[in-house]
Amino acid sequence: MSDGIARRMEDIKPFQVMALLARARELEAQGRSIVHLEIGEPDFNTPQPIVEAGIAALRAGQVHYTPAVGLAALREAIANWYSKGAGITVSPERIIVTPGASGALLLAMAVLLNPGEAVLMADPGYPCNRYFARLLEGKTIGIPVTEASDYQLSSNHMDSYWTPETRVALVASPANPTGTLLSQAGLAALIKSVESRKGTLIVDEIYHGLVYEGRAATALGLSDHVLVINSFSKYFGMTGWRLGWLVVPNNFIEAAEKLAQNLFLAASTPAQYAALAAFKPETLEILEARRVEFQQRRDFLLPGLRSLGFYVPVTPQGAFYIYANCSRFSTDSFAFAQELLEKTGVAVTPGIDFGCNAPQQHLRFAYTTSTEQLQEGLKRLQAYLN
Amino acid sequence: MSDGIARRMEDIKPFQVMALLARARELEAQGRSIVHLEIGEPDFNTPQPIVEAGIAALRAGQVHYTPAVGLAALREAIANWYSKGAGITVSPERIIVTPGASGALLLAMAVLLNPGEAVLMADPGYPCNRYFARLLEGKTIGIPVTEASDYQLSSNHMDSYWTPETRVALVASPANPTGTLLSQAGLAALIKSVESRKGTLIVDEIYHGLVYEGRAATALGLSDHVLVINSFSKYFGMTGWRLGWLVVPNNFIEAAEKLAQNLFLAASTPAQYAALAAFKPETLEILEARRVEFQQRRDFLLPGLRSLGFYVPVTPQGAFYIYANCSRFSTDSFAFAQELLEKTGVAVTPGIDFGCNAPQQHLRFAYTTSTEQLQEGLKRLQAYLN
Ligand SMILES: Cc1ncc(COP(=O)(O)O)c(C=O)c1O
Ligand SMILES: Cc1ncc(COP(=O)(O)O)c(C=O)c1O
Repeated sequence: MSDGIARRMEDIKPFQVMALLARARELEAQGRSIVHLEIGEPDFNTPQPIVEAGIAALRAGQVHYTPAVGLAALREAIANWYSKGAGITVSPERIIVTPGASGALLLAMAVLLNPGEAVLMADPGYPCNRYFARLLEGKTIGIPVTEASDYQLSSNHMDSYWTPETRVALVASPANPTGTLLSQAGLAALIKSVESRKGTLIVDEIYHGLVYEGRAATALGLSDHVLVINSFSKYFGMTGWRLGWLVVPNNFIEAAEKLAQNLFLAASTPAQYAALAAFKPETLEILEARRVEFQQRRDFLLPGLRSLGFYVPVTPQGAFYIYANCSRFSTDSFAFAQELLEKTGVAVTPGIDFGCNAPQQHLRFAYTTSTEQLQEGLKRLQAYLN
Repeated sequence: MSDGIARRMEDIKPFQVMALLARARELEAQGRSIVHLEIGEPDFNTPQPIVEAGIAALRAGQVHYTPAVGLAALREAIANWYSKGAGITVSPERIIVTPGASGALLLAMAVLLNPGEAVLMADPGYPCNRYFARLLEGKTIGIPVTEASDYQLSSNHMDSYWTPETRVALVASPANPTGTLLSQAGLAALIKSVESRKGTLIVDEIYHGLVYEGRAATALGLSDHVLVINSFSKYFGMTGWRLGWLVVPNNFIEAAEKLAQNLFLAASTPAQYAALAAFKPETLEILEARRVEFQQRRDFLLPGLRSLGFYVPVTPQGAFYIYANCSRFSTDSFAFAQELLEKTGVAVTPGIDFGCNAPQQHLRFAYTTSTEQLQEGLKRLQAYLN
């Protein structure tokens, strides 16, 4: 290209919400009070036992590179967690510690996807997924999902969308932006369907732990051939530490390890030592209290939005998001989000970042702020919209 | 592929030295004393002011995502550092904070390289470089460099190796594994040569600051079109924190930012806050003392190796590596390294990880250990080899 920028960059989009966020900050700097319902991370700080473990590691000089796949003790701790929590045996060798789920998604796609091959994923979905595929010269097929399948992929979708060039299907449960779960039966059927086509399923379990109804059982209990993404970011409250993991089938261990060596060298050392405290009983107690708090927020915000006229056909069972149809108010959700910000000081994320499936009719509300703030937000929306 | 692994993985190699490292650990566990000359990171811990800043950040709850391009304060601090240290004005907007130089290398290549396009780089060179290109379906042309050009690329190499499919040339100064510098004149000629071909030069300055002779002036002083890689890993002693940066030309800012958003979300937050203390006078004083110590080690190890019969035609002027021709002792440096480990307990890195240019005749010695250990290492080698 004449400007010297690689072609892939034409297809890779920035987060549109950033413009809104910048404007929200500007308004705040001017003294306006903003209710933040656009933030995709817990408002809670990292649990204190994890922080203390991080500090202790720094004091002890744990500041050098670790093995590329992570500290042996951390990989074992994660394996133990699967064993205690889900009764599932995962050999620590299959666990690759990564710089966030972001790093895990890059590794997973890079070991699986050839140029020209396609990944099936739900639309709406997590924005970055399709760009990992694009980076690798793969294709993304965004499957428009609706309330009929709880906004999740199903084996029916595989029947309709799988082509000879399809290599991978990717799901997240609970999902961003919809907060919906795949049922155990749905997940099992999906695995069967993908594996019968000699494809591979990637399951993003980053919001596991943050589930308020039903159960989110790890896909690792259903197949030894899935790749599972997870992270210390959301449930464990460690977003800024940049630490996640990838569980791979046995035959992918070697490939994932050499790729992690070359792409990352290793994940953050202080973060890894800190994360050793993530599975302690006192930490899990804090996390459980937070989960309950998130549930209370959801149970407050969801009926409030519905009674204002936002349409949320499927009750989001996990994560901290409500993906609401706003077409009663607007068919241009981006402009509508700007309007809400300017007129009410309520910041939300318009659908556009999550795909091409009716984004203009949707807003994502994140309940990553206190119930008081949610209350204030609803009050402002009520006053403005009614 | 029948095993489900993407084709690129056939071309991506693990670090061969890992097998030696594992064996060294095994021997240590058995009680053998090992002199480590294979480690590519400072043996020093992170300077205390940086550690304290990291701890303070953790205590203050700085554990959430930062902007994708990094904290504004850190980007400004880096810009200031260029201004104070080199008298060069770099707008903070051009500085993208990344998860290590590793993240910066991925970003740089991804915004530049189309599939099928080639990157020219020195062989021997940093192992990961060619795999970033491979990940992106680009090609690597490893140019065999010799003492004649201080093991660096020159404009003559551009004349010989540049083809219509070449897009990028990549240099590191000081270099890994050779520790050699590009002269100012050499760098200027290289920039001119690359830019006259409408290509782009990436300059990896991760070992800047660790220079013992001559000067390593940043390429940013010579052109506004180069991409410059740097990191807090080596000079600042923060390897395990995973923090680096990329300086891009103005017309690449937007592309680099959206790519950083999607691939990384952001670099480590505690690391970024910690790094704010990296430019403090008390930190720089510590770093200068370490630089002097590295120089003393080099000045001890280099003549020692030469007098044993290792051939080091160019005096390494920076980093903490000596790339020595060992053909007087062996023409299979990997086997030789294994032999040295078993027989003398001295661990070194064989040439194979650094490319295809006579790796069998070379060993990399890293002086990332105390002078006493270097002394002990030389003593053992002397006893065994003579
Ligand atoms: C579904 C999903 N996957 C992955 C990620 C990446 O998270 P991290 O890299 O912080 O672990 C996110 C972050 O928002 C997400 O929502
Ligand atoms: C020349 C060179 N570039 C880049 C890196 C990557 O370092 P980091 O990702 O720790 O900043 C290294 C590490 O050894 C290196 O030697």
